[in-house]
Parts: sequence; C-alpha cells; structure tokens
Amino acid sequence: MSKGNRERTNRGRFRVGSMALLAMLLLPASALAQGAEDWTTDVSVDTLWVLVAGILVFFMNAGFGCIEAGFCRAKNAVNILAKNFVVFGISSIAFFLIGWTLMFGDGNDFVGLQGFMLAGMDNSPLTGDAYQGAYSSINWTGVPLLAKFFFQLVFAGTAATIVSGCVAERIHYRAFMLFTFALVALSYPITGHWIWGGGWLQTLGMWDFAGSTVVHSVGGWAGLAGIVLLGPRIGKYKKGRVHPIPGHSMALAFLGGMILWLGWFGFNPGSTMGISGDVALLVSHIVVTTNMSCAAGLLAATMTAWMVSGKPDFSMTVNGALAGLVAITAPCAFVSPGSAIVIGAVAGVLVVFSVMFFDKIKIDDPVGALSVHLTNGIWGTLSIGLFASQAIPGGIDADGLFYGGGFGLLMNQFYGVAAVGAFTFGFAWVVWRTLKALGGIRVSAEEEYIGLDVSEMGMEAYAKDSVSHVA
Amino acid sequence: MSKGNRERTNRGRFRVGSMALLAMLLLPASALAQGAEDWTTDVSVDTLWVLVAGILVFFMNAGFGCIEAGFCRAKNAVNILAKNFVVFGISSIAFFLIGWTLMFGDGNDFVGLQGFMLAGMDNSPLTGDAYQGAYSSINWTGVPLLAKFFFQLVFAGTAATIVSGCVAERIHYRAFMLFTFALVALSYPITGHWIWGGGWLQTLGMWDFAGSTVVHSVGGWAGLAGIVLLGPRIGKYKKGRVHPIPGHSMALAFLGGMILWLGWFGFNPGSTMGISGDVALLVSHIVVTTNMSCAAGLLAATMTAWMVSGKPDFSMTVNGALAGLVAITAPCAFVSPGSAIVIGAVAGVLVVFSVMFFDKIKIDDPVGALSVHLTNGIWGTLSIGLFASQAIPGGIDADGLFYGGGFGLLMNQFYGVAAVGAFTFGFAWVVWRTLKALGGIRVSAEEEYIGLDVSEMGMEAYAKDSVSHVA
Amino acid sequence: MSKGNRERTNRGRFRVGSMALLAMLLLPASALAQGAEDWTTDVSVDTLWVLVAGILVFFMNAGFGCIEAGFCRAKNAVNILAKNFVVFGISSIAFFLIGWTLMFGDGNDFVGLQGFMLAGMDNSPLTGDAYQGAYSSINWTGVPLLAKFFFQLVFAGTAATIVSGCVAERIHYRAFMLFTFALVALSYPITGHWIWGGGWLQTLGMWDFAGSTVVHSVGGWAGLAGIVLLGPRIGKYKKGRVHPIPGHSMALAFLGGMILWLGWFGFNPGSTMGISGDVALLVSHIVVTTNMSCAAGLLAATMTAWMVSGKPDFSMTVNGALAGLVAITAPCAFVSPGSAIVIGAVAGVLVVFSVMFFDKIKIDDPVGALSVHLTNGIWGTLSIGLFASQAIPGGIDADGLFYGGGFGLLMNQFYGVAAVGAFTFGFAWVVWRTLKALGGIRVSAEEEYIGLDVSEMGMEAYAKDSVSHVA
Repeated sequence: MSKGNRERTNRGRFRVGSMALLAMLLLPASALAQGAEDWTTDVSVDTLWVLVAGILVFFMNAGFGCIEAGFCRAKNAVNILAKNFVVFGISSIAFFLIGWTLMFGDGNDFVGLQGFMLAGMDNSPLTGDAYQGAYSSINWTGVPLLAKFFFQLVFAGTAATIVSGCVAERIHYRAFMLFTFALVALSYPITGHWIWGGGWLQTLGMWDFAGSTVVHSVGGWAGLAGIVLLGPRIGKYKKGRVHPIPGHSMALAFLGGMILWLGWFGFNPGSTMGISGDVALLVSHIVVTTNMSCAAGLLAATMTAWMVSGKPDFSMTVNGALAGLVAITAPCAFVSPGSAIVIGAVAGVLVVFSVMFFDKIKIDDPVGALSVHLTNGIWGTLSIGLFASQAIPGGIDADGLFYGGGFGLLMNQFYGVAAVGAFTFGFAWVVWRTLKALGGIRVSAEEEYIGLDVSEMGMEAYAKDSVSHVA
Repeated sequence: MSKGNRERTNRGRFRVGSMALLAMLLLPASALAQGAEDWTTDVSVDTLWVLVAGILVFFMNAGFGCIEAGFCRAKNAVNILAKNFVVFGISSIAFFLIGWTLMFGDGNDFVGLQGFMLAGMDNSPLTGDAYQGAYSSINWTGVPLLAKFFFQLVFAGTAATIVSGCVAERIHYRAFMLFTFALVALSYPITGHWIWGGGWLQTLGMWDFAGSTVVHSVGGWAGLAGIVLLGPRIGKYKKGRVHPIPGHSMALAFLGGMILWLGWFGFNPGSTMGISGDVALLVSHIVVTTNMSCAAGLLAATMTAWMVSGKPDFSMTVNGALAGLVAITAPCAFVSPGSAIVIGAVAGVLVVFSVMFFDKIKIDDPVGALSVHLTNGIWGTLSIGLFASQAIPGGIDADGLFYGGGFGLLMNQFYGVAAVGAFTFGFAWVVWRTLKALGGIRVSAEEEYIGLDVSEMGMEAYAKDSVSHVA
Repeated sequence: MSKGNRERTNRGRFRVGSMALLAMLLLPASALAQGAEDWTTDVSVDTLWVLVAGILVFFMNAGFGCIEAGFCRAKNAVNILAKNFVVFGISSIAFFLIGWTLMFGDGNDFVGLQGFMLAGMDNSPLTGDAYQGAYSSINWTGVPLLAKFFFQLVFAGTAATIVSGCVAERIHYRAFMLFTFALVALSYPITGHWIWGGGWLQTLGMWDFAGSTVVHSVGGWAGLAGIVLLGPRIGKYKKGRVHPIPGHSMALAFLGGMILWLGWFGFNPGSTMGISGDVALLVSHIVVTTNMSCAAGLLAATMTAWMVSGKPDFSMTVNGALAGLVAITAPCAFVSPGSAIVIGAVAGVLVVFSVMFFDKIKIDDPVGALSVHLTNGIWGTLSIGLFASQAIPGGIDADGLFYGGGFGLLMNQFYGVAAVGAFTFGFAWVVWRTLKALGGIRVSAEEEYIGLDVSEMGMEAYAKDSVSHVA
C-alpha cells in the first residue's frame, strides 16, 4: 500500500527468492518446477486474502449508509440511504474509466497517465521487473491485476461515501452524484498517486499505510468544502445557539458502527495486499493494532462525553470507535499494540472536542463525519511521526519522535497532510462552486422543511402501514 | 459449476499435472512427496475459498429477508421475516435428505440417483478418476465433499427464498413451508442436474456459470406460479388501476440490497469452487465483472426510473443493482468487464419496464422479485449467447453472437431457459394446486386486512413501547 | 481449541512430518528448502483462516446487539445497543491486560501466570517444542501469536455480551461495564484455562471443541447471578401471573439471528485454528454439522411453539436457531451430520420449555439468553458424552454412550459443566454483590418506568422526526 509496505514485501520476496536460488543450484529441474508451483500457491493465497479483505471493505458502504441515516432525521432517510447506495455505483464507473489510471498508471510524480480502462491489461500476478505493464507502482504485490483493481476501487468508494455524511439533509441528489464522479475520477486518485502511486510524497518519505490521509481526510476535506458552501441546516444555529438535531434511529447507528468496525478488518490488514510468507505476521499484527485502537477510542470517547455532558452519549461511543479506527489506519503496520491503544484513546478524546469545535464555528456536520474522518485522519497520519518504530514488521524506514527518530518523520507526515488537504479542498471547492453555478447544490427551504425524501426522492422511508390503505 | 468451468479447471489441473509428471521423471521420490504436499496445500486454499464464499452466500438469506420485509407493509413484516428465516432451515434438511443426490448424484441425463444423505460418503478431495464416489459430476473441484455440499446447499436456499418475495402478504405460512420443501427436495435439484450435474443441457452446450437460470429464474418461475394461483393482494388493482402499496422501511431495503451485493461476491466468484493455480486469475476477473454489472444496473435503473416517473425511485435503484447482479451471474466468467457493464445496464433498464409490465398484466409481485430474478435471470442466461468470448479465462468453448460465434450458443441458451422454465413452472403449479386443494394457500380477506403478523404469527413486528405497559 | 483438537492437529503434523523426513533422507538440501517453504505457505493459509473466522466471530457483537435490542422495549434500546457496543471495547482491553495470560499463559492446573500483555512476545508461528514462549498450551496451532490472541479475544467478548441480554432493561450502565471487565479479565479466562489452557479439566478428559461451556454457559451462569440479584422487571410477574413484555422490533431480532448464524461459521469451524493439510476435511465437516444443528433447532423450536401456543412464535424460531448453534458448539467436531440434526432438534425443543421454566420460577430473562446459552450450553456439552465418535475426524479419544463408549465420557462432561458453573456463578455473585454494595446495580423504579434511554443514556433510540423541529 505504501512505499514501506512495498519494500517490506520485496524483502520478503528476496528471502524466499534466495532460498529458491540455493535449491536451484543444487537441483535445477526440481527446484524450478517447485518454485513455479510454490509461487502459484502463494499467489492464490494472496489473492484470496486481498479479495476477502476487499469484500469486507465494500461492505463498509452498508455501514456508512446505516450510520449516516441513523444520525439524520427520518424525513431525509431515503435520500441519505440512496446516496450511500449510488455512491459505490458511480465510484465503480469513475474509477474504472479514469481514476485507476490517474492513481496507479505509470506517469510522473504528480499523476498516472497510462493504462486507461485496464485496456490491454495483463492480469498476471508477476511482480517487480518480471511484470511488463502500465501499473508498475503497484507491482510490489503478487496478485492478479483485477484483484488489485477491486481492492483499490473499494477504497476509492470509501472516500466518496464520507462526503455524503457531511452534506446530509440539504444537498441536491443530482449535485451529490456529479460531485462523487468528479472526486473519484480526478481528485482522489491524484492525491492517492502522490502517496501510493509512486508520486512525490512517497519519494519524500511520507507514510500512510492504509489511508488515514489518502482515503479518510480526503473525504473529510471534500466534505468540508461542501459544508462551507452549503451552509448549516435551517435552525441548527438559530439565535446564536447550537440546537442539537437528534438522529432518528440509534439502532441503525449501532449497526452502522458495527459494520464499519467489521469492514476495517479488511481495510487495514488487507492493505498488505498479501499474506503469504512472513506477511502473515504483519497481517496478524495489524488486526490487533486496529482492534485495540478502536477499543480505546470508543472507551475514551464514552468517558470524555460522560465527563463533559454528564451522560455516556452513545453517538460519541460509536464515533469514538470510528475515530480510533481512522487514526490507526495510517500507522497500523508501524506501531505496537500498546501504541495503538494510546493513539486510539487520543482519537476518542479528540472526536468529542472536535464535534464541539465544529459546532462552535458553525460548521454543520450532521453525523460528525469531519470529526471522525478529517480530524482523526490528520491525527492518525501525524501519529506515525510520533509512534512509528522500525522494530515493528511494517517496514517503515525511520523512527518516530517517541522512538528516538527526531522530528524528521513527523515533518514529512505534516507536509503530506497539508499538501493533500490543500489540493483536495481546492479541487472540491471548485467543483462545488461549479455545480452551484450550473444548477444549484442546496435544496430550497421548503424542500428542506418537508424533507428530502418527499421532495427529492418522491417517497417516505417509513410509509404508514395503513390497514385501511387498500380497503 | 458448469461444464465449462469443469473443463477449464481440468485444463488447469492438466497443466499442473504435466509439470508434476516432468519432475517425477527426473526425480521420482522428491517429486512424489512434493506433489502430495502441494496438492494438500492447494486443497486447503481451495477449501478455504469455497467455505468463505459459501458463508457469504448463506448471508444472502439476511439480505433477502431485509429487502422483502422493507418492501412490504409493517403488518406483514414478522411473517416475511419468519419465512426468510425458516426457509434456510427447511432447505438445509430437504437438500441433505434428497436434493443433493438428485442434483449431483450419479444417475442419468435427467436426475441423480445415488448417494442419498451423503451415506457412506468419502469426504476426500480427490478429483477426476482418482475419486471413487457417487458424485462424479462435481468431481472437477478438489475440495472435501462436505465443502461442496455446503456450497451447493446455500445456492439451493437462495432459489427457495426468492419465492417468499413473490407470494408475500397473502400466503399461509404453512403452505410456504411445504412448498419450500418440495422445491428444494425435488424441482431445483432436477433442473440443476440438467445444467450442473452432468445432465442433458450440459451435454447440449448450454452454459450458466453461477446460476442465472439454475438458481434465479428457477426461483422466479416457482414464484410466478404461486402469484398466478394466489391472485393479487386486495386493492392492488382495484377499479382497473394500479395502486402502489409502499413498503414500510427503506432502511431495511437498503440494508437488504447491500447484504445481497455482499453475498454475490461469494455467489459468482465462489462458483469457481477453487482458487488455487491460475483459477486465482478467474476469481479476480469474476469479482470485477460482478461488481461492474451491479454498478451499471443500479445507475441505469435509477436513470430510467427518473426519466419515466420524474423521481430517482430508490426502490428501483436497489432492484437495479440486484438486476445487474442476477444478469451477470450466468456470464460472469465468460465476458469482459466492459461487456459486464453493458449487460448490467440493460438489466437496469429491463427491471424498470418489467415491473411496469407485470403490473399491467395484474401479476402482483410485491417486492419486484420476478423482474429481478426471472426477467434478468433469463436476460443474463441469454447474454452469454451474445457476449461470451473464448478469450476470457472462464473456459467457455464457443463465442457469442457479438464475438463472431453466430447464433449457435444463443440458441442453446434459449433452449435451457425454456426447458427449465417449463419444468419449474409446471412443477410449481402442481404443488401449489395440491396445497390449495389440501389446506388452502391464501389467507382469508379478513386475515389479509388485519395483516399476517397478528393473524398468522400471533405477534406484531413493532409492538408499541407502552410506558404504561407494566404499570 | 481443545485437547482433542490439539492432538488431532499434532497427528496431522506428524503425518506431514514423516513424509518430510522421508524426503529429507533421500534429498536433504532440496527437502529442507521445500519443507521450509511449505511450512510458510501453510502458515499463511492457516493464518488467513483463523483471522477470517475471528472477524466473523467479532461480527457476532452486532448480532447480539440487534437481537437483544429487538427483543427489548424501545425505551431501553439505546441502552442495550450501547452495552453491546462498549462490551467489546472493554473486553479487548481486559483480555489484553490480564485475561489472555490467565487463560493461555504457562502456569498451573488452575490458572495461567506468564506473559502478561503479550510482553516480550514472540509472534512466530512455530509449533510444539520449536516454540519457546509463555503460551505453550496454545502451541498446537501454527499461526502467529497475534492471530491466536485475536481469535481468543473475540471468544471472550462473546461470553461477556451474553450477560447483557440477561440483565437488560433494569441494570445500571456503569455496573454492567465494571462487571464486564471483571468477567473477561478474571473469571472467563480461569475456567477457560481449565478446559483450553492445559488445566485440570483438559487433563481429566472433558471436551468442549468450540465453547458450549467455555463461552456460552459461562455467559449464562454470569447472567443468571445478575438476574437473581437484580430481580424481575417491574410488572413481569405481577399478581402471580407471567405478563409477556413484547420486544420492539422483530426486524432487529431477525437481523440479529441471521448475523449470529453467520458468525457461528467462524466460531465453530474456526476453532480448528487452522485449515492446512487434512484439517480442511475437519473444517468442512464442522461447517456442515453447525448448519444442520441450527436448521434442526429452528424447525424444532418453531414446531414446539406452534404446538404449545398455537402460533409459530417467531421469537422461538430465532432462539431455536441459536439453541441449535450453542448446542453443537461443543460437539461439532466429534459427531456426524446426522447426530448434529438430533442434537439441534433436542436443543430446539429444550429452548421452548426452558423459557417457560425460567418464567415459572420467576427468573426474568428478557431475551431468552439463559435458555439459549445456559440450558443449551449444558446440553451441548453433555451431548458429547452421548454422540461423540472416534470415527469422526475431530480427534476425540473416547466414544459417547450411543457409540458404545459407556458413561465415562458423559461423566467427564458433567464434571466440567458442574465445575465451571459453580465457579462462574460464585464469582459473578461476588462481583454483582460488590457492585451492589458500592453503587447499586439496579436503576430506580422511576428510571425503569421512564426507560433507561432517557434516564441513563440521555437520548431516545427513535427521536421523533419533528418537521416543526427547526421551524
């Protein structure tokens, strides 16, 4: 996923390779046959893991839909559910047509340029120099090209779906669909190219194992631009006070949180994009760091909310879990389980105060998506600069501040956060402004009052079960 | 899964086999030991994939339950949820006792006859001639017999659960349970035997990789017979006009759609029933064709509904996704990702007009199951005759019309559709008629008016949370 | 997981090992290299399976939350959902800090004592004597230590979450959180050590493959102590009659039941903690026994309820499925598919009468958790003594009563049930009493009347979607 991972994997391959070389010298024919067969089995095992992990990440779309709908009002539920459903359809098409190539196609430091629509693709799982194709930046993993494509596609879809929470309860359905296409086709893959596609941030030594920045803060920045241009929902900050607008179903929010936690076991551990050889050790490590950070995040957020508001606010429990997950996404392969607990606990505290902060500056984020994905996407990315250790098997090539590495790594992380933030926010601003000029992005006050379900979607989420309906 | 798949896999085995043969000639002892061990590891990898895929397909029961309940009224919700829960229990018993043998047991061109209840089973994963058992038609895959049984069982359960949507809101619970047993014990496995169990359609050269016909249209035909005999729900076509009866929870429908999409990543790619060797390339291919067709289907249905009705009908978005999934189920291994997009887009358009068509002829299909599973089961099966290409790794032995293969393949597909449709509809008609004669299949008008939950199940789906309940 | 499993796996290793030995004698260098590489691939395959299975088990938290919330009243829904969310956070921390070591650390017959917090851990997947670490009791499985930890952690979380159902609708949130910590840190791992950690029950020859006793009845005993000390909900047994208090959402109950069934495909088959070599046969076997018992359980419970109450009570259908799953958890590897059907059918009947029994003695168990997890945890554990057969590949070293083994095994199972029950109930009693003395465990009558959501959590599960909210 990241440069470090690539190098680590290459090291692993080298080790296997050197043993194969030894065997080959002794017993050429047998070793050759054996090498070919072992390679094949490893490819299958790696492919199986990447696909299963990708399928888990895909399912996060269900989680985002449930949690966003749960935290919004019933009158907008169909709208937000529909957005979370179509978003992955649009992402699939946009990433297939354009995004994949801009992100992983061979090109320059800023963008990929070759291999649109997987045209003339070689689906073989060859790695390193053996592979002759247009996507050399993702050639450190030995799985079929289409498995790589699918795994990266579900990540792109995640970034897009984060936006839907930010702009909930007041955006035009059509405007959201067009924005999604632009984000996944153009913006997400360009910044992704910088960090995962062989671009300038990767060269610089900025690290993001599974996407705290590449995926989560990108979604957050894009949503922030939308929130600023849309303005708050009617009544949210009436008469200078914050009026909480409670969500309509904590059952949906619970289910959404659980599904996202589930999906993250694909998101982070799957970003090894393999499990053969000693990568199995790393995958196991990441499963544990991911879970421990989430556990710490949910407990810290619960406690913080309890102290601040006097009640163990359940929405903060869920958002605390997600905050812990977002934060550990970048460093999951580079830090110890103990560090993961600290990173998650900080994330859980941060998310509570971030929600309060955004309300204070009248940034109306209905489901807390900014506090989860942007605030903690930044925190998670920076935390590498503090907690990373070369002793952890993730393959990072520098230590964080707390492990004697000084400020160098931390600064690289900061540059990455700032550069991706500036580009994404700017891009999103231009697209939202363009959409606003063309056909408007915000529904009318009347439509907002009635709810988007009736006004935009033409149906209710929970139609009255009229016994007399057909009588 | 299909003949093509078997041949493809056999080819894969042959390639590995020839290498092993070479090694054996050179260094007998070593090669022998190595062969045995590699075989073992491949078996484990294949088994892991088949079981995980089967588990995902199992979970589609949850998806069907959610989507059907969501599209029905609250007063019938317990009934439809209960049907979707018991259906897999009944299917498990029926397929274990009878169905499995009729489908995969050695027999003749029309039905399997040996190996009831897995009696005296050899659970070994031997393939081809090495295996001495009663289920030679499924011997192309080298996983333990019980893994094959489980994977096929979850497919049988899917066919049965489709029926529950068709007959929703007016059928006797008991009648549905008995029908399910008959379908899974007798009808589904017989037509399945024709196509996947070495029967006459397989010999003819009719192809269905993962079951557009074997599973989905079978469910649709069985449901159609039920709908015709039950008649429409009271009030649906009152005074010659179509009265929409909105479902009670779009949140459930959303979740159901998402879970089904998830499950399809087991359904189609899992139908390779293996992932070792170069099958990993095919599995990756199918994951992508499956997803692209679904994406195209949901977008096409959304756009079509938007143009037809003026609103981006969310129920059509969900059904469009399912239509794309059903349609790509047969051809997923034989067509390119680009073709998958076309097949899915056509499915998305078809599902909208199919819903309108069935309403026009007063076929009352409460959740759109016929339009999803029957119409697009047929379309998907036929699409092989148009889009199939021998250049795709799925192993089909003829090209479709658009790839220069003429009408031959298309006609074979048509014969398969017609034969399976005639048999299944006829079987279902007889069973429904018999049940009607014995104890009735439709609830009384009063019970339908009150709702099946109170009248049949003795409980409400959403009991009032009476604070005074216990006071 | 159990001693038997360890021996079985060791046998498997032995077989592979002896072949490797043969090859080594003939062709030392090649065989050595090959052995190392095969070992590596097997480790990856095993790791992949253990992690995927663990992830499925993790998701059972979502299932428990849905089913418990569905069977409770809306006024307590946030509370019970929140409990099911925080419970895994607390379990993660408690098991990491203390529980893991007490359960699997090297120690004595009663408790593990070494290796707290995985300190100085060796993450290598070495097995048997090759491994030099603090957790020799779980060294029969060749996966990385952190994969073992994760898999065991999700089991610990399951035990804890069972309690939340028992004490629903009247317990203080804080008291439940503290109890969870105590249970997972101390009690669960100690009894777990007895059976899975090399303790005295394992030595005695008491068998529990995947945890009918270790996990399920432990949760049940801990919950029973809580129920006795809390007393029934207000109004439940008013004037000497049982007043049913219907749950608020059968849709949530359906979804919960389905998710739990899904998760059990990780719970039981994953308890092999590997799939390489001939373990693939065993995993396939367990998938089938698990499913058949569940199917039989849900059908038997449905029929029993239908006969007893005149209606096919859906809550009994769901609880019957869970009863079948709990019952087959201990014997899944030791019995035939046919026996699994019998065991599940008995469980389905038992669960109905158990619910009636507990109500008769005024043990108020809102969601039927005792009847599912305690009654059938006991039944499942004892059923090994009746149905176990050494002919099944699970590796048990004695036959059950029905297979000619006499009463020996049955008595061992009984001792295990009694010992674990006595310890857990006693421990839980002391902890609940202590919590009661310190700050109380039951909310006030007023709070219970209002509902825990408003009184304890400060929010409603389903806030009214007030259109006028912002006007």
